[in-house]
Amino acid sequence: MGQDQNGGSERRRSRTCFSYLYSTILSHSSLERSLSFHLGNKLCSSTLLSTLLYDLFLNIFTTDPNLRSATVADLRAARYRDPACVSFSHCLLNYKGFLACQAQRVAHKLWTQSRKPLALALQSRISDVFAVDIHPAAKIGKGILFDHATGVVVGETAVIGNNVSILHHVTLGGTGKFGGDRHPKISDGVLIGAGATILGNIKIGEGANIGAGSVVLIDVPPRTTAVGNPARLVGGKEQPTKNEEVPGESMDHTSFISEWSGYII
Amino acid sequence: MGQDQNGGSERRRSRTCFSYLYSTILSHSSLERSLSFHLGNKLCSSTLLSTLLYDLFLNIFTTDPNLRSATVADLRAARYRDPACVSFSHCLLNYKGFLACQAQRVAHKLWTQSRKPLALALQSRISDVFAVDIHPAAKIGKGILFDHATGVVVGETAVIGNNVSILHHVTLGGTGKFGGDRHPKISDGVLIGAGATILGNIKIGEGANIGAGSVVLIDVPPRTTAVGNPARLVGGKEQPTKNEEVPGESMDHTSFISEWSGYII
Amino acid sequence: MGQDQNGGSERRRSRTCFSYLYSTILSHSSLERSLSFHLGNKLCSSTLLSTLLYDLFLNIFTTDPNLRSATVADLRAARYRDPACVSFSHCLLNYKGFLACQAQRVAHKLWTQSRKPLALALQSRISDVFAVDIHPAAKIGKGILFDHATGVVVGETAVIGNNVSILHHVTLGGTGKFGGDRHPKISDGVLIGAGATILGNIKIGEGANIGAGSVVLIDVPPRTTAVGNPARLVGGKEQPTKNEEVPGESMDHTSFISEWSGYII
Amino acid sequence: MGQDQNGGSERRRSRTCFSYLYSTILSHSSLERSLSFHLGNKLCSSTLLSTLLYDLFLNIFTTDPNLRSATVADLRAARYRDPACVSFSHCLLNYKGFLACQAQRVAHKLWTQSRKPLALALQSRISDVFAVDIHPAAKIGKGILFDHATGVVVGETAVIGNNVSILHHVTLGGTGKFGGDRHPKISDGVLIGAGATILGNIKIGEGANIGAGSVVLIDVPPRTTAVGNPARLVGGKEQPTKNEEVPGESMDHTSFISEWSGYII
Amino acid sequence: MGQDQNGGSERRRSRTCFSYLYSTILSHSSLERSLSFHLGNKLCSSTLLSTLLYDLFLNIFTTDPNLRSATVADLRAARYRDPACVSFSHCLLNYKGFLACQAQRVAHKLWTQSRKPLALALQSRISDVFAVDIHPAAKIGKGILFDHATGVVVGETAVIGNNVSILHHVTLGGTGKFGGDRHPKISDGVLIGAGATILGNIKIGEGANIGAGSVVLIDVPPRTTAVGNPARLVGGKEQPTKNEEVPGESMDHTSFISEWSGYII
Amino acid sequence: MGQDQNGGSERRRSRTCFSYLYSTILSHSSLERSLSFHLGNKLCSSTLLSTLLYDLFLNIFTTDPNLRSATVADLRAARYRDPACVSFSHCLLNYKGFLACQAQRVAHKLWTQSRKPLALALQSRISDVFAVDIHPAAKIGKGILFDHATGVVVGETAVIGNNVSILHHVTLGGTGKFGGDRHPKISDGVLIGAGATILGNIKIGEGANIGAGSVVLIDVPPRTTAVGNPARLVGGKEQPTKNEEVPGESMDHTSFISEWSGYII
Repeated sequence: MGQDQNGGSERRRSRTCFSYLYSTILSHSSLERSLSFHLGNKLCSSTLLSTLLYDLFLNIFTTDPNLRSATVADLRAARYRDPACVSFSHCLLNYKGFLACQAQRVAHKLWTQSRKPLALALQSRISDVFAVDIHPAAKIGKGILFDHATGVVVGETAVIGNNVSILHHVTLGGTGKFGGDRHPKISDGVLIGAGATILGNIKIGEGANIGAGSVVLIDVPPRTTAVGNPARLVGGKEQPTKNEEVPGESMDHTSFISEWSGYII
Repeated sequence: MGQDQNGGSERRRSRTCFSYLYSTILSHSSLERSLSFHLGNKLCSSTLLSTLLYDLFLNIFTTDPNLRSATVADLRAARYRDPACVSFSHCLLNYKGFLACQAQRVAHKLWTQSRKPLALALQSRISDVFAVDIHPAAKIGKGILFDHATGVVVGETAVIGNNVSILHHVTLGGTGKFGGDRHPKISDGVLIGAGATILGNIKIGEGANIGAGSVVLIDVPPRTTAVGNPARLVGGKEQPTKNEEVPGESMDHTSFISEWSGYII
Repeated sequence: MGQDQNGGSERRRSRTCFSYLYSTILSHSSLERSLSFHLGNKLCSSTLLSTLLYDLFLNIFTTDPNLRSATVADLRAARYRDPACVSFSHCLLNYKGFLACQAQRVAHKLWTQSRKPLALALQSRISDVFAVDIHPAAKIGKGILFDHATGVVVGETAVIGNNVSILHHVTLGGTGKFGGDRHPKISDGVLIGAGATILGNIKIGEGANIGAGSVVLIDVPPRTTAVGNPARLVGGKEQPTKNEEVPGESMDHTSFISEWSGYII
Repeated sequence: MGQDQNGGSERRRSRTCFSYLYSTILSHSSLERSLSFHLGNKLCSSTLLSTLLYDLFLNIFTTDPNLRSATVADLRAARYRDPACVSFSHCLLNYKGFLACQAQRVAHKLWTQSRKPLALALQSRISDVFAVDIHPAAKIGKGILFDHATGVVVGETAVIGNNVSILHHVTLGGTGKFGGDRHPKISDGVLIGAGATILGNIKIGEGANIGAGSVVLIDVPPRTTAVGNPARLVGGKEQPTKNEEVPGESMDHTSFISEWSGYII
Repeated sequence: MGQDQNGGSERRRSRTCFSYLYSTILSHSSLERSLSFHLGNKLCSSTLLSTLLYDLFLNIFTTDPNLRSATVADLRAARYRDPACVSFSHCLLNYKGFLACQAQRVAHKLWTQSRKPLALALQSRISDVFAVDIHPAAKIGKGILFDHATGVVVGETAVIGNNVSILHHVTLGGTGKFGGDRHPKISDGVLIGAGATILGNIKIGEGANIGAGSVVLIDVPPRTTAVGNPARLVGGKEQPTKNEEVPGESMDHTSFISEWSGYII
Repeated sequence: MGQDQNGGSERRRSRTCFSYLYSTILSHSSLERSLSFHLGNKLCSSTLLSTLLYDLFLNIFTTDPNLRSATVADLRAARYRDPACVSFSHCLLNYKGFLACQAQRVAHKLWTQSRKPLALALQSRISDVFAVDIHPAAKIGKGILFDHATGVVVGETAVIGNNVSILHHVTLGGTGKFGGDRHPKISDGVLIGAGATILGNIKIGEGANIGAGSVVLIDVPPRTTAVGNPARLVGGKEQPTKNEEVPGESMDHTSFISEWSGYII
């Protein structure tokens, strides 16, 4: 076979693959069905059959309208905040942060229904498959972007507000061996950079910006940046000025460097 | 179908799932059998069949009583140190840190029997499935808690003592391109916080506390806390006063902040 | 069955396993075939069949000689820089960093052929299976060692030169929500330690050494070490003196501590 | 471990298995759901995912009440006519004749909806998995027992009435290479013995009894027995006398031997 | 969701499924590739990986042009002789007789290359998956139709000519426990009806017609019909008159009944 | 790549495949282990995991020495009676009749232990995978050859003696819809030809020979041949003269034709 023909057939296979992915996942009759189908196939194991999971996801997604609106807000968050996200379908098909978050929303629903063993089994599968470990009891708002997502750990009593962006390797962890309310509370519009570790029942205020690699053990006021290990606070504005300046939405990890002199490298 | 009936059937399915998980895994006639079954199904691949792995794990777990006592100690460690661990079975079924550690114990046994290719293949599968990469030659004590566990890396000549607690993203790494004894030695009762990186053939003394995100390149004396990047030593007691103050058991990541003034944020 | 016999049969199984692995993967008639076979089986999913992937990989590996030479250089990099790498076949069979990198090279080829949906689907599978998330548009040189590799994230416009060594949890990330050239450029011979986070369109010069856990937001000159969070520059030589002193090849993470006084712990 | 304990644990595992099967299949909230779940898992392949099939079956079973009543009638047929059938659940779980028939009913529905490629793909899977090859266009009544079922072949224009019992290796075949109405029409209450071959557009009358191994090429009048190769007619009653004498329900393969002298061996 | 919308989405899924099947199988760049892909996925098992089989099939199909022409002739045979065959792709995707025959051609090639263990393993898989058991040493001509195919058994020294049609449950068997040439030789243009059993090293002459359910233990002359158990010869013509009268091509199972008076029922 | 080299690599892969099959199955430390491994992988499904089946088979095979001796006798039966059987390992790896029979022995053991649901589930899997449907209550002797085996059906109260050979498509069936002892009793040394149907609680005497395609509804005396549909008795000897004349061992299907004049074709 000639080079050209081969190139042609390769391109044909490429289109094939695209239409294939489109077919089996995206052409389902609804977002809930597409997502349930995709998650069921991604998260299934020898002891959690894909059909069981599909059925479970579809039931929960279709009976709780809040989940649907959260899913749509998360899709929009990925599409508009991540420049590498080329389309909604790209996110739906390929973003493990998005998929892990939707699956956690289902696990959370199970948790509130006192179906805890299944919720915990689901958490375990999400951690195995996506390397994202979010306790089913954690409360997560809408419009969340878990970008790249590998290594994210969110503890049992953590709370995440709306329009928050969290990069990979971020920990919202507890401390000590006693139960109770022991994990961070993340307010609306926060941006948490890659590898940041936030420990204990502390509050990260609205629109705060947690620098990559920071280790944060104390409250961070609204619209304040925390950087370093241990984290220092390096700025803060009482009022947000424009919409695009909410860090959780602007995804601006570094421009505060020149803006606030506290962070000199 | 009515809402009520649907709710009822959902609850029924929830109980079903629980009894299912109980059935297939926990009701095996012994802990060794349950664990071998579960690990065989989790770690199998197209080239390492689940039956082969089940057979391998069961043979090694049942012929080495030390492995059994280590497994029991690890289960207790998770149950008593991690407030999110609701039962032994929760740990056995769902904790990838626990499962990765037991699989590494088998890989280590294979390594000592000079069955190195199989030991290395097992390490690779554990790293793929659980994102936990522990060299089969590493020596690990009993009563170990790998909490969350994603991203843990432990090198070939590392040694971990008893009753150690290690959070996720922790590295016990080497340096340079030459072989020999080049990885950290972790003494009994040490607590290593999330994301800590400990490099080189250094010694972390008994009951030491390595802060989250620390980068440790030097020995840490017993009962001493190391924090920061690069890590500074921020305290130390010559004698432990009570059992619950061993960090590897108390899981206290942050209370030393007020106790030792060296760690001001 | 007696203890001895059992030991004998266990050893027999061990040899069996080795010959098995040898058989199914290594005895293929070429490196391209072995690698395509192994990657196809590792990365397949319910929607990306192993036969489809095998066919795809084999086609691309055999039609682009640059890929073959890159693969060979990567194998050599692992074999000579990582003291835990006992053989080429150990690397080929078990190193997820090596496997993820080869799969990314294929995804990159697809990207340049405008087969983007398939390239992105492949990125997603690599991230699920190996917890290594490298954008298919990223440009990667030859002789690359991704050691341990879990958690590595490399963004769309990142460029990695030749003979670079990158440890696990390393991020070559962007900043902001706008597209364009926004990720780091890593020059030849650079060594990036575990957990280092490098953000923005900055340049890491030839032979630079980025310390573990560093957060780097500014250019790093050639043969210079950057450590800490935020990273400080702690040395630099205008001319490399010997081949083995290129950090990306010597894998020397820590000896600069005594050599350059800037890094005091 | 002692003999007794082992026996005990074996028994425990036995109960476990039962409760397991019960759990995953039978405890679904409806017959349609249980059946769809079971068929989806039985018939799935690398190109027909179990979730896709589950969804397909559930949609069709729940939107067509005729299918449900046919399924119930088939379950009853197996339970009351086959002395080896110990319970409805035994039939639902284990009878490939029952399962193949239900799947064909779905394929037939698809055929009538002009979804022919999918209907034919389903026929192919049923033939692969159950060795039962029924064309999706064939019309099948209610209360059908396909006993053992291996090797059954039913052609495109065949029609099967109600309360028919068909043993394994039975062929309802066509002849020639031209299309059109070319397969047998089986009336209500017919019993067709193992290995019988019925060819061409012929009519098997109500309550007829086709002997095992017969080759039937001509019409068989109602309440008549046909035996041998080529088949001879060996009796017939103008009126049925009692309900239990309908062969398709009595499953009486042999008592006609003494009753009608025509069948001498 | 309304009935109409649901119907619409069902139809959409139907088209989806068709385009899906088309995509993954038929759009491969060549018949050999499509067939190898499909057979690899159908015949794979836990010990014969689909990638291995794909590679094996593709290698043999592309290096032996005779195999390709045989495959094309078999496709034509199904398309033109079986009125239920709606298209070439229907046959390629769904006909187990066609697929089993192509796989046997590969097994036969392996047998002639003295790769007997693999040839026998393949025979075993074909028998498991398709319930078609053809010894790899059997010689099979071109333009063969195995219609329905379930239960076909063809022995080691059997020979099948060109343009032969064989229905399901047909046996070309041996007798005795000694090796050597002991199976039937089927000449060109023969039609063998469903369930016919032909035993011993006998010859079935050109254009012969073996009735359904026949048990044949003696030679059958050309253009002769054999029917019954034991089979009687019921006609024969010295010269074929027209092409369409070759039974293996006309698929006429029953018209000889009126034509030749020897077959009275 | 040259033709020669390709031929060489193909041969290498052939050896590879052989050594692979040898490795994974035959090199287990015992026949019981090899067989359990192979059956577990062949019979597993999404609801009967291979590890569960392996464990089950291994437990039963190793605790009942009768099963082992039956397995060995069956292996010998295949090796010595079937000229196509080239080695014991060929039988163990590839003969579905042998494998189905061993699995039925396990199902029978479960049945006698009142573990009926599991026994029936196993019967169902054997019927799906091998198209061999033997009720777990049926009693089967030693030295049994199920040759080709596709389509064999054996009912609940059937009894099969020792050294019996049964070809494919053979039915040992019941009649009527009432329970109780209703299936054939096959004495030692019987040979049952392909496609024979034996119905009802009748006795087939020692060393009887049932012709292919026969339909047998009456007792057959010892050393007697039954042929045809309906079967006629065509000979019989009061005493066997030599060991090799036992049909179940000589596999002589046709030589009686010249010996006894009753079978004229």
